[in-house]
Amino acid sequence: MNQKMIKNPAFTFDLNSYLISKRKKINAFINEILNNSANSSRIVQAMHYSLMAGGKRVRPILCIAASEAVGGNADDVLPAACALEMIHTYSLIHDDLPAMDNDDLRRGKPTCHVAFDEATAVLAGDALLTSAFQVLSSNNLINENNTSNQLKVVHRISFAAGYNGMIEGQMRDITSEGTLLSLEQLEDMHFLKTGALIEASIFSGALLGGGSQKQIDQLEIYAKNIGLAFQVADDILNVEGDPTVMGKAVGTDNARGKSTYPSIMGLNKSKEFAKKLVRNALKALDDFDSNANSLRAIACYIIERKK
Amino acid sequence: MNQKMIKNPAFTFDLNSYLISKRKKINAFINEILNNSANSSRIVQAMHYSLMAGGKRVRPILCIAASEAVGGNADDVLPAACALEMIHTYSLIHDDLPAMDNDDLRRGKPTCHVAFDEATAVLAGDALLTSAFQVLSSNNLINENNTSNQLKVVHRISFAAGYNGMIEGQMRDITSEGTLLSLEQLEDMHFLKTGALIEASIFSGALLGGGSQKQIDQLEIYAKNIGLAFQVADDILNVEGDPTVMGKAVGTDNARGKSTYPSIMGLNKSKEFAKKLVRNALKALDDFDSNANSLRAIACYIIERKK
Repeated sequence: MNQKMIKNPAFTFDLNSYLISKRKKINAFINEILNNSANSSRIVQAMHYSLMAGGKRVRPILCIAASEAVGGNADDVLPAACALEMIHTYSLIHDDLPAMDNDDLRRGKPTCHVAFDEATAVLAGDALLTSAFQVLSSNNLINENNTSNQLKVVHRISFAAGYNGMIEGQMRDITSEGTLLSLEQLEDMHFLKTGALIEASIFSGALLGGGSQKQIDQLEIYAKNIGLAFQVADDILNVEGDPTVMGKAVGTDNARGKSTYPSIMGLNKSKEFAKKLVRNALKALDDFDSNANSLRAIACYIIERKK
Repeated sequence: MNQKMIKNPAFTFDLNSYLISKRKKINAFINEILNNSANSSRIVQAMHYSLMAGGKRVRPILCIAASEAVGGNADDVLPAACALEMIHTYSLIHDDLPAMDNDDLRRGKPTCHVAFDEATAVLAGDALLTSAFQVLSSNNLINENNTSNQLKVVHRISFAAGYNGMIEGQMRDITSEGTLLSLEQLEDMHFLKTGALIEASIFSGALLGGGSQKQIDQLEIYAKNIGLAFQVADDILNVEGDPTVMGKAVGTDNARGKSTYPSIMGLNKSKEFAKKLVRNALKALDDFDSNANSLRAIACYIIERKK
């Protein structure tokens, strides 16, 4: 999509350099977490394998960008950002298990249970989830005034990742295969499965970055819209993406009888819907200054990306 | 074992009534957590099934008893106590999975993946672990002065449950089947698998109950000793317990080629060792008043129990 079409005030923002620099910071911190462990067991190897298997770092980058948008900085929220990636990675490891989606490949590489074994994959997922809360409650994030905010972040993230959020979404995703969902059911499922944690990422960055309640409210609107746009774009890529660029097969949703935006509203309407969501997201940032340009550019990138 | 042999100052303490009343409190709070959910999905049903499948509530009772021992009360630490039971229950659900210990029965009832299905069991375990941190970070536990202590509890519990604790212990348990462990390796494995979370339970109760650093240090010594005693006693029960009383098969450790205290040091020396550990635990309570009688009685109960 042409960025100018949606009057993106950040169209000169160098998103690529931004993403590269944040990913570098995130990867360094993740390595530090795992290397600080006295433990070089099979579990830690499996955690490392999946964490370093080429993830886009969407959630941690959104957390950092939200912090910057309210005048905070990346380093202050880096532990929270990395904890979000650990939670995301655990969910992928468990979703890929034979009893769930039974996927052998993820980002072009063997999934955790294929590279290691099923027991190790279950435990590595469990360990990533548990460690995320260890990181979220660590001294790294504490200063004298914000233990209360830090607890709020633990609470929000655990809510979003739990049975009222991501886990319920995955359950619905599994049980709805072969059933035609209504648009509302599909939206609910995606909100639960991916939207809630994306919102929690942005909430956490904004709160720990020192945002006002009004700023946080606006960023939550931004988050809701890009969370959904992200999923619509994913569904579109599953129809018309290039498997060699994406590092994974396409057409899999259709083969599995999964309800998707293209299957319910058609490909063209899905694309229009994604654009509308991105416009809504940008509008929610109207009162923010240029510190929010990374968030603006990310919103546009969601529907431009090829993988 | 005769309680008088170890000069238990709590030998008149009515442990049975104590356990019944605390279990009632714990079960009511667990039900409240799950019923407060707007969500009555299959995941919540599976969580409920496993949480209510007759657990002894060892960890939450230890948490409450530690709080009482330092002059705190049960209600203040009830959310933390129940979160510990949720973490314990998640670990049982995942340990029972076909890819792990492949157990069909737990406490005389079908395990979660048998009663539901494997995908639901993986997700219900994930949900219990995640919800535990939601409960630990909730307002229930917050008062103005203790957000810092609350974070310390999140940190300690996540450490104990993670890849430096329970999860590493389970990994070693799986991979050591059929290998003869040294006594030191066996002790390390048990500390990781069960000891670390038992210590975290007692630490959490003592800290949130307002204990001094000296009291917490003594309670940690108590915890280390009863954690190990608990495991030695479990190994003994697996040899000579009554399956109809225990609600599970005996002799399974031997059949699986698991290293146990009886297999390494013999049955009689194992019993002596368990008694010695209980004496050490009681000694660590020397400076505590009668508020610690529940902890004293629990230490004795560990090696008297028949299931």
